[in-house]
Amino acid sequence: MNKADLLITNGIVVTMDRNETVIANGAVAVCGDRIVDIGPNEKFSDCRAAKVVDAKNGIIMPGLINTHTHAAMTCFRGLADDLHLMTWLNDYIFPAEAKLNYEKVKTGALLACAEMILSGTTCFADMYLFEDAVAEAAKAAGMRAVVGEVLYNFPSPSYGAIEEGFVYSENLIKKWKSDPLITVAVEPHSPYLCAPDLLTRASDLSNAYEVPLIIHVAETQIEVNTIFESYGKTPIAHLADIGVLSPLLLACHCVAVTDKDIEQLASYDVKVSHNPESNMKLASGIAPVPQMMNAGICVGLGTDGCTSNNNIDMFLEMDTAAKIHKVNTLDPTVMDANTVLKMATRDAAKALGLDGVTGSLVPGKKADIIIIDINKPHLTPMYNLYSHLVYAAGGNDVDTSVINGQVVMENRQLLTLDIEKVMADVNEIAAEVKSGF
Amino acid sequence: MNKADLLITNGIVVTMDRNETVIANGAVAVCGDRIVDIGPNEKFSDCRAAKVVDAKNGIIMPGLINTHTHAAMTCFRGLADDLHLMTWLNDYIFPAEAKLNYEKVKTGALLACAEMILSGTTCFADMYLFEDAVAEAAKAAGMRAVVGEVLYNFPSPSYGAIEEGFVYSENLIKKWKSDPLITVAVEPHSPYLCAPDLLTRASDLSNAYEVPLIIHVAETQIEVNTIFESYGKTPIAHLADIGVLSPLLLACHCVAVTDKDIEQLASYDVKVSHNPESNMKLASGIAPVPQMMNAGICVGLGTDGCTSNNNIDMFLEMDTAAKIHKVNTLDPTVMDANTVLKMATRDAAKALGLDGVTGSLVPGKKADIIIIDINKPHLTPMYNLYSHLVYAAGGNDVDTSVINGQVVMENRQLLTLDIEKVMADVNEIAAEVKSGF
Repeated sequence: MNKADLLITNGIVVTMDRNETVIANGAVAVCGDRIVDIGPNEKFSDCRAAKVVDAKNGIIMPGLINTHTHAAMTCFRGLADDLHLMTWLNDYIFPAEAKLNYEKVKTGALLACAEMILSGTTCFADMYLFEDAVAEAAKAAGMRAVVGEVLYNFPSPSYGAIEEGFVYSENLIKKWKSDPLITVAVEPHSPYLCAPDLLTRASDLSNAYEVPLIIHVAETQIEVNTIFESYGKTPIAHLADIGVLSPLLLACHCVAVTDKDIEQLASYDVKVSHNPESNMKLASGIAPVPQMMNAGICVGLGTDGCTSNNNIDMFLEMDTAAKIHKVNTLDPTVMDANTVLKMATRDAAKALGLDGVTGSLVPGKKADIIIIDINKPHLTPMYNLYSHLVYAAGGNDVDTSVINGQVVMENRQLLTLDIEKVMADVNEIAAEVKSGF
Repeated sequence: MNKADLLITNGIVVTMDRNETVIANGAVAVCGDRIVDIGPNEKFSDCRAAKVVDAKNGIIMPGLINTHTHAAMTCFRGLADDLHLMTWLNDYIFPAEAKLNYEKVKTGALLACAEMILSGTTCFADMYLFEDAVAEAAKAAGMRAVVGEVLYNFPSPSYGAIEEGFVYSENLIKKWKSDPLITVAVEPHSPYLCAPDLLTRASDLSNAYEVPLIIHVAETQIEVNTIFESYGKTPIAHLADIGVLSPLLLACHCVAVTDKDIEQLASYDVKVSHNPESNMKLASGIAPVPQMMNAGICVGLGTDGCTSNNNIDMFLEMDTAAKIHKVNTLDPTVMDANTVLKMATRDAAKALGLDGVTGSLVPGKKADIIIIDINKPHLTPMYNLYSHLVYAAGGNDVDTSVINGQVVMENRQLLTLDIEKVMADVNEIAAEVKSGF
């Protein structure tokens, strides 16, 4: 290795590769958008690099991947909490969302990108309205994103007839198909807001373009009861019967699932997005994640939107994910730190169909890399890397972030966005929202 | 108001007083160690203050109070995780603790104080070995603390015979009785490690000096079963029958309690310390806190030691406390943000017998005040103060901290401790611990 565009030196390299290789005093070399080499520092002593970042004995690791969020909901963060789901949705969220437009969604998504970069996330999967605005925001921030326009049985603020939702989705796929950062997914909201023909059509579109199909499913027992009344089966069985389960499907939440549902998810190689903090805050329940993982299902971690969280910090989500299943099963050995970190990196990438692209530090993959500053009181001393990352660290400990080979944050300074302007713009939207309640 | 030692201006004052008064653009004046006045900024326009701190439109609020921790366990943070309780204790924690001494406990406690101040805690209740060292560390850091030497049925690393533990405790009470920051408590470990006569004697000592009595109790169902085998009753009923329940008692954990236990705790006005993250991580269970609060029990929040957490950030603990009971009861309206914030401030002070001293911003109380910087992406926009503090903020958002009238942190710079030295000292202890495993 004698030349690189970017060389990150002098850190503990936590690769999260298949062997979970850790290099005690290592470096990562990047050419263009890709990782080209990883090894002990000495290996790079003759390497001339256009830019060198000193990790200062911190942790060099893959950026975290948020498998489910609604980025632009930053505009409504804390608008309504501690309420029953239907009060929350009907009295606050839906009325607020009715006034959204392309610009507001873009502004909210920019704020989410800033928050995510500042807390170590380098890639996120989004479901919302005006998703082209989210893609543009991610591009502006330099973030990797999977975006998809939400499809319902009824018109949305961003399109009129159901038909137009499909046109919107297909145009989005075509527009972004060669983009290095953006992947487009097809995203029907849920089995309770989407009729079977909408779901199968969405599935067909996903298959035709080989893009992810993302849906909320089995989020609450109430949803399960509703679907049972309509179709006489569980939501997962319903999706199976109409032919929607597939390896391209990312099923978000999967809180209220039966043993049979889990078997079906596993047999179709469906991926699952686990959103523990949102499921706790909305009192939805606790997804049987250890059981799903034992069944061989690939589970990625996600924060959900920040109206039901109320931050989108994946480090805090990892901590909760590790703890909630321990107390739920009364077994402190389940969901160990290593498993949870995998769920936020390698497995999250796989859940989004991006395992060839990101999720671990491996030569050939895109350079999505974060550096953690561990020289802090709450990270002292250090006995175990994985324990520290999951149980002790927070997003604020991320010092530097590289996405697709571009340094997007250095020494906690965002380099891609004018964050003061973004915050001012969101505050303006919030003032308008407040005046409506 | 025309003179003050310290004037904190230009913030949203969240008093957490009985009326939960909030002053939109307010200030707090401090003379010596006490709050002397609170009001709108204009009220203080003629006030000459020796020091003025501009809150820059942030939140001015009472410092958080951690009702249960083992500060010096910072030395073992992340030493062992994801293990069964007995493996964790017998194979890791107890062998590591056997090598502790006064100096090491002081060093570990200094690190904990740094971490707590940096995350907005101004007062903590500690239970550990060599507690005089913890008191000295708290004094050096400028923190308010309730300290107590742990009492067991067997010798501890800091004293020989059981008798000596009582001598240690009584000496500690006498040494610190006039100190403005330190309160000493009597702290028998638990009903399963303390015989009835030790417990009643501890209770007598607490009553004689009118100091808090602090104990771990009903932490797990296993403990309940053990006590039932020995005494034929629940741990709470056992404590009631030997006369140990009293308003001076702070019962930590109370995870595995019956309806009858809750009635007894309420009827004796026993206080409870709730430690949700530790209870989750150790798979102990979920304390029925909403039920205890409905019964009128005063519940304060705590982190427990950082070996079972693994940080001691009360902001993160508040977030978890608010969420875990929602999902446990499947009711999103329980443990609303306001209730949880009270549990970490006013009620926590009451739980420690310090309600006349700290826990809210009220003229006459000691000046234990923190300032939250809300000009951050993850705290934008703001619709609801309480929601933000509980669900969105983290300890890192605390900008400035005042304890007993002394500014101990300003613009995130610790003013009382040489934090680099403390971290280096703890790393040295950790190196020794590692060599022992």
